Amino acid sequence: MRFDSPVRVARPALDVLDQTRLPHEEVWLSLRRVGELCEAVRSLRVRGAPLLGVCGAGGVAIAAEELGVADAILQEAAEQIADTRPTAVELRTGAELALATALARSPRDRADTLWTFARDYLSRRRDEDARLASLGAGLLDKGSVVLTHCNTGMLATGGIGTALGVIRVAFEQGRLSHCYATETRPLLQGARLTAWELKQAAIPSSLVPDTAAAALLGTGKVSAVITGADRIAMNGDTANKVGTYGLAAVASRHGVPFYVSAPRSTFDPGCPTGAAIPPRFRSPHEGGGFRGQRWSPDGLGAFNPAFDVTPAELITAFITEAGIARPPFGSSFRALLAQP
Amino acid sequence: MRFDSPVRVARPALDVLDQTRLPHEEVWLSLRRVGELCEAVRSLRVRGAPLLGVCGAGGVAIAAEELGVADAILQEAAEQIADTRPTAVELRTGAELALATALARSPRDRADTLWTFARDYLSRRRDEDARLASLGAGLLDKGSVVLTHCNTGMLATGGIGTALGVIRVAFEQGRLSHCYATETRPLLQGARLTAWELKQAAIPSSLVPDTAAAALLGTGKVSAVITGADRIAMNGDTANKVGTYGLAAVASRHGVPFYVSAPRSTFDPGCPTGAAIPPRFRSPHEGGGFRGQRWSPDGLGAFNPAFDVTPAELITAFITEAGIARPPFGSSFRALLAQP
Repeated sequence: MRFDSPVRVARPALDVLDQTRLPHEEVWLSLRRVGELCEAVRSLRVRGAPLLGVCGAGGVAIAAEELGVADAILQEAAEQIADTRPTAVELRTGAELALATALARSPRDRADTLWTFARDYLSRRRDEDARLASLGAGLLDKGSVVLTHCNTGMLATGGIGTALGVIRVAFEQGRLSHCYATETRPLLQGARLTAWELKQAAIPSSLVPDTAAAALLGTGKVSAVITGADRIAMNGDTANKVGTYGLAAVASRHGVPFYVSAPRSTFDPGCPTGAAIPPRFRSPHEGGGFRGQRWSPDGLGAFNPAFDVTPAELITAFITEAGIARPPFGSSFRALLAQP
Repeated sequence: MRFDSPVRVARPALDVLDQTRLPHEEVWLSLRRVGELCEAVRSLRVRGAPLLGVCGAGGVAIAAEELGVADAILQEAAEQIADTRPTAVELRTGAELALATALARSPRDRADTLWTFARDYLSRRRDEDARLASLGAGLLDKGSVVLTHCNTGMLATGGIGTALGVIRVAFEQGRLSHCYATETRPLLQGARLTAWELKQAAIPSSLVPDTAAAALLGTGKVSAVITGADRIAMNGDTANKVGTYGLAAVASRHGVPFYVSAPRSTFDPGCPTGAAIPPRFRSPHEGGGFRGQRWSPDGLGAFNPAFDVTPAELITAFITEAGIARPPFGSSFRALLAQP
């Protein structure tokens, strides 16, 4: 069967593809207990902000099935789920929206309501991704060659993906001839996950060591760079997976368009510029090795930020489910966010 | 014992540190046969252009000891050694210079001459590195923080190193407070070798995933970037380990000085600009994995160039054993190369 989603809402379970086993094995987990769901989130078996939103909503439905529907039980479960990865805002959002929806109903309707909510949540995500991907694909001319970073596909969103969704639809429309994917050290989401998705979708593609991306852009072969976003400030400065800024800086030198693909929920009206986004660092241990393999002497520190901030001036346009935003971003963002 | 060289000329052997076992094990090999030397070169147990020059010279001395000193024997051995890594120009240079020196002597002096030649060759390299490092260190103010790429230390040259030699001397002089080293995918020379050398020298240091180098430069904490070079065109365009260009592009955006450290033998008077340097690609298999570990699905291609070319406009100055060259490089190179 062709891969079309890493998650299925299948009462009484949430079925998820174990992403830590990719690309070598496709192992599905049937999560029927809140503890199992939390373990899967904590161990990054499921990851990607939008997909974690689905897991947050589905987790409360699992709680209703496993533990019961009393207010205190659902509240405690939603809190436990959200606390599993405190930096994953959409995990909390999914859990809290599901909880609020359930608490507004009578106890005997709550389990049904929660499963329906989880199904609808995933379905909305799919619709949003599809609109975004279709709008983004329209930016690419026939025969385009695209470079992307990290994983922004089905494995990240549960829908068709953001940047990788654009690439996928562009390929289906005959607009894309080749996709280059960075390895994306230190967690290698590009090498492990994007490469796997590209292969599943039979898109002609090559991997690029992160060090080689600048040389690739220098060849003149790349038509556009497309990445996702973690958080977008109101002036267009964009936090995304570390490495994005370097790609944008080099793309700009070569006049290669740089597109950021993200749903409007990624825009942060409370954040005026990138300077307001505090840095966040991950374990130094991620540098100098991967999983069990160590390449570096022990005890060495690492500069290992989770994301970097690409200044707005390096970004050609933002691709959202509600339209394309071009500079000046202040006004184009306001227009996008004002839409229903 | 503090590490001070990866090679010892120890008649009847050339002793080399097996770099494939670093950083976890320090294993010395005592090479007494031409076949053993060629295997060590082919398997990258010894690497780094200047160090390979020493191995080329030492290899002919080994041949004299193992096989005899007749013209044909030494000629065949020198050819066999040079052909082991055809792209390593200095390997051939070392072997051919040793051969010519031996053939000019009577047979009974040849073995002595060859061992003396190998010892002197290494000694000249050490002197050259020391002069370069001392001149380069003078460019750094007290408390400097330096970012470097790949491995350009003792393990690469047999002397104190080029870029890493500058860093080492600057540290000894109290000019350097911290060194950041990129991992340098795909072969991870930074993570494996530079990290090990920095630790041996007790220099405060951190590893940087290649994706994080742009973010690091964006923090304003880095005083200078210093790299080595594979080949320098007469206008200053510089071929070096892939990833160098991206670092230079981002350093330039932030006004961080970008220094290239290399002996004058790296300057190619036959090469007017970087456009005359043909690209060279390594096995796609190096993308998506390291040694036995594979992260990517099988059968995916990779864009895996061995080096990239940094345009002269991004380079602040060149550090050589004969002086510092600043723009305009055309005339400053001529002055450097005219010196004895």
